[in-house]
Amino acid sequence: MDGQISERAVVLASGGLDSTVAAAVARRDGHILSLLTINYQQRHVVEVQCAKQVAEVLGAERHIVMNVDLRAIGGSALTGTLPVPKDRSESERSQEVPNTYVPGRNLIFLSLAAAQAEVLGASAIYFGANVVDYSGYPDCRPEFIKAVEAVLRVGTKAGMTRRHIEIRAPLLQLSKADIIRLGLALKAPLHLTHSCYDPVGPVACGHCDSCLIRKRGFAEAGVVDPIQYAVF
Amino acid sequence: MDGQISERAVVLASGGLDSTVAAAVARRDGHILSLLTINYQQRHVVEVQCAKQVAEVLGAERHIVMNVDLRAIGGSALTGTLPVPKDRSESERSQEVPNTYVPGRNLIFLSLAAAQAEVLGASAIYFGANVVDYSGYPDCRPEFIKAVEAVLRVGTKAGMTRRHIEIRAPLLQLSKADIIRLGLALKAPLHLTHSCYDPVGPVACGHCDSCLIRKRGFAEAGVVDPIQYAVF
Repeated sequence: MDGQISERAVVLASGGLDSTVAAAVARRDGHILSLLTINYQQRHVVEVQCAKQVAEVLGAERHIVMNVDLRAIGGSALTGTLPVPKDRSESERSQEVPNTYVPGRNLIFLSLAAAQAEVLGASAIYFGANVVDYSGYPDCRPEFIKAVEAVLRVGTKAGMTRRHIEIRAPLLQLSKADIIRLGLALKAPLHLTHSCYDPVGPVACGHCDSCLIRKRGFAEAGVVDPIQYAVF
Repeated sequence: MDGQISERAVVLASGGLDSTVAAAVARRDGHILSLLTINYQQRHVVEVQCAKQVAEVLGAERHIVMNVDLRAIGGSALTGTLPVPKDRSESERSQEVPNTYVPGRNLIFLSLAAAQAEVLGASAIYFGANVVDYSGYPDCRPEFIKAVEAVLRVGTKAGMTRRHIEIRAPLLQLSKADIIRLGLALKAPLHLTHSCYDPVGPVACGHCDSCLIRKRGFAEAGVVDPIQYAVF
């Protein structure tokens, strides 16, 4: 971005590991950061506090927390009363769309980010989607992201009147270990991030899919995970 | 739909004239109705009460009201402090994207409807978008709706595992007078609908774009508008 005026980027920041690394990539790319956190009445609402701290440490210009009550819709372990699956093997995790999939979530989140990008005149949305560990989630796939970009080209004022809002998913094809290495290289505050689907107070459970994937990633990267687990 | 089991449809129901007629079309098409109203902290929140009454009169199986705080994003006269334009001529209304455009709104709403359709196993979303009177809104155009359908094909569990969720916009190419005639033919409760962007208490202002378009539509249809206006 040498010699260019810095452009704003909206980062979907959940307070989790992936979105925090995505935000650090947006900072590296020279953007002025506007973080957007969606409080969707998820079980793991502690994430919202993590996102606030991440926004501060990364020097974001703005951090918007939006309330969207996805519980009204239901259909997921993350917003309802279905149990969060624990201690599933890798093959179990890859077999089907898990009940921690929140119907429509990433489309809803990208839509909200697009709205914010329009209002701020931002040129990009950064999004921590990952297809390696979340192959069972339809809305983490590259063809989904391309289709949403196509919607933004035809369905926004920005798309009609000036250049296009890009969706950047820099972690899409990375393993969790590579995401962790990238985060460390970019000085992303990994110690402030939260990944657990079913925390015990503010502490990660250590047994849900998300904890298992995170723990394996840190082990593969050969780095100590700086967060606490209720049971390791 | 003779001889077939009735399928559910999600209807984006704002409490306004167009979405109420769209809901009546879904009922005519034989669907079990699930109405979804988004309370987005709009100026004209009286719409939400209208939507409740419309859901009752149309015999909807379900009416979900979801809170989504679009004020956090801003950028529109409908959710912020920008003034609602009044008494604009038809040529003024068609010249540019008006400040009553809410960035990303229809995409956000369709995303939420898609989430509800997934959870309920609904086969269609009905949506009262209209391109005739809202040619300045990028997210009321047919190419936008097609692009969102493409997203739903790749980005939902429904799209991956069973047949596709269709988006039906039965009013897209109709004039307001034709929408009113269709609503009357289908016994849609037009007397319960609310269209004003800037109501005075529960009463329509009579001067915003939406009131002007509604009043002209009733005049062209040769029917008395059953709602009250502060100034007619």
